[in-house]
Amino acid sequence: MLSHAKTMLTTTHLYQEIHEQPAVLRRFLAAERAPMAALAAAIHARQIRHVVIAARGTSDNAGRYAQYVLGAFNGLTVTLATPSLFSIYKRPPQFGDALVLGISQSGKSPDIVAVLAEARRQGALTAVFTNTPTSPLAAQGDFVINLQAGAEQAVAATKSYSSSLTAVALLSTLLAADAEMETALQQLPDAVAATLAMSAPIAAVAPRYRYMQRSVVIGRGFNYATAFEMALKMKELTYTIVEPYSSADFLHGPLALIEPGFPVIVIAPAGVMLPEMQDFMRILRDREAEIVGISDDGATLELARIPLALPHGVPEWLSPITAIVPGQLFAMHLAHTRDLNVDAPRAIRKVTETQ
Amino acid sequence: MLSHAKTMLTTTHLYQEIHEQPAVLRRFLAAERAPMAALAAAIHARQIRHVVIAARGTSDNAGRYAQYVLGAFNGLTVTLATPSLFSIYKRPPQFGDALVLGISQSGKSPDIVAVLAEARRQGALTAVFTNTPTSPLAAQGDFVINLQAGAEQAVAATKSYSSSLTAVALLSTLLAADAEMETALQQLPDAVAATLAMSAPIAAVAPRYRYMQRSVVIGRGFNYATAFEMALKMKELTYTIVEPYSSADFLHGPLALIEPGFPVIVIAPAGVMLPEMQDFMRILRDREAEIVGISDDGATLELARIPLALPHGVPEWLSPITAIVPGQLFAMHLAHTRDLNVDAPRAIRKVTETQ
Repeated sequence: MLSHAKTMLTTTHLYQEIHEQPAVLRRFLAAERAPMAALAAAIHARQIRHVVIAARGTSDNAGRYAQYVLGAFNGLTVTLATPSLFSIYKRPPQFGDALVLGISQSGKSPDIVAVLAEARRQGALTAVFTNTPTSPLAAQGDFVINLQAGAEQAVAATKSYSSSLTAVALLSTLLAADAEMETALQQLPDAVAATLAMSAPIAAVAPRYRYMQRSVVIGRGFNYATAFEMALKMKELTYTIVEPYSSADFLHGPLALIEPGFPVIVIAPAGVMLPEMQDFMRILRDREAEIVGISDDGATLELARIPLALPHGVPEWLSPITAIVPGQLFAMHLAHTRDLNVDAPRAIRKVTETQ
Repeated sequence: MLSHAKTMLTTTHLYQEIHEQPAVLRRFLAAERAPMAALAAAIHARQIRHVVIAARGTSDNAGRYAQYVLGAFNGLTVTLATPSLFSIYKRPPQFGDALVLGISQSGKSPDIVAVLAEARRQGALTAVFTNTPTSPLAAQGDFVINLQAGAEQAVAATKSYSSSLTAVALLSTLLAADAEMETALQQLPDAVAATLAMSAPIAAVAPRYRYMQRSVVIGRGFNYATAFEMALKMKELTYTIVEPYSSADFLHGPLALIEPGFPVIVIAPAGVMLPEMQDFMRILRDREAEIVGISDDGATLELARIPLALPHGVPEWLSPITAIVPGQLFAMHLAHTRDLNVDAPRAIRKVTETQ
């Protein structure tokens, strides 16, 4: 029965789409460099220093990544929009000289379209990252970037997420005109391919969490987005309530949740943030939390009860694109361990149209 | 034993501070009008259209409220800052001509101070809302507003939160120079006093949730902040994992969590957002969720399994300052029902200094 179930998993859309990610990123980087360069040129020409991003769900997590990448390397202030001010209250703020960027796999959510339409009405520069270049959202973009993920059939988004993050990373690289960033970005698809080898160890550990009802995922800085996206996959696929947090925000109150055995997933790749995350893991250990650690750093993995080793050599700013892969795999294998349908979770559909 | 425990609760700092809120807001509105008018004049003089807010925990939820109030009534785009770009990565974005606003009860968290210090270095206008006008954060403010909450001794912030929201509402009112907003704001302390009458019905219902391990709190628009703040109080005081969500974001995936009996707290005061929240409650009812409804609207309360009735007559934009009161009371009474120490939750301290 167990080996039958395992055979079945490989035939699911979710499994296949997770494993398509290296090919998607290669296709994206080859096809979308020229349109992204045109967007970067327009940003320079208009001397834009502020970006407003409208997105929901998984795409909103790509927006969180953009806050750090475009902030750190391009000096841009990045705001996540409040769509209901546009779609429900009809009291839109003024964008001034901001770039307004919509991110959406389907390009169909009316509240996100409303933000872009108002931006255009105000004369702001608009851009859209979407997997559906014929969508209503794309129609509102002065610049449209195709995520090149191909048809995404599993309800839980995976390859369109890594492609959205790669789009943000490509924009940042072209804005900075930085050769070192460029080299790292070109190596990214191979790094994602290497990360897929984590599937077997994660499948082996998933049964330990079969009856887990609640958890938190912690990331900070570039990987704040990874914490949000892994938590979302866990909720969608496994019906566990999993809340994402920055380690700093978690210390301002929610730390009270931790009791012995409380499961905490920590995303802590090598980089500037690592000492901070290690300090945080020591606080968790003092409180006897169960730490699942996702890292490419040996000393960090030793702080975890369950270490999940990422491949080495990915720079911190690109690590969210590899570090989400174990998150996707963990949610998939845990759902499978629970005999759930990984392609069609209860209650949700692929395209969600919210006002 | 029960009546003994109830007598004890009224002597706690938390109980007293929740009940001080009407007096705090009266004092705040009387004392801080002139300094806030000076800040509003500076915002007009510099033609500011963009605000960046740096805050953590409860104060960050005041920032969420500001996104909607300053957006809807003053046309301002409001960004929640990414402090680690300043404090850890040392790669600060450019503020351009934004106002940079720090909100903090203690004024002591180094990461928040770092954002304001960099804003000042860049020549941006800075302002600070704090309960500690002698704090390191206040020293970075061109304008300093005293939250006038008095000493807050319970670890979980309550009166400094309602005062922070009132500060945002006062700033918005003075920027708009709107007489109707002014009148509503002056009536707010009495409305908060009336809301405290919810304590008895909430105490009566709290035992129903004694063994609840997980929940979500839903709010949208002006009350998105209320969902975050109530969820934070529940985590701090009751150690329940309670995740806040906008109804729109919840439909983009997390809806999969809902099974019969799953407890969902819905914040749905009368106003423009109400039909949206009612639709959402019907979706929850179809999935047999347990709905705790916080509203001043009769038809909305009928959609809830456990209705918690707010006083009538508070306009939607100010409703977050009354609607959080049942959230504070619910968390307090649930903690008390669980025989927990409401003044000093395990593991956390009043002042959290994160880098």
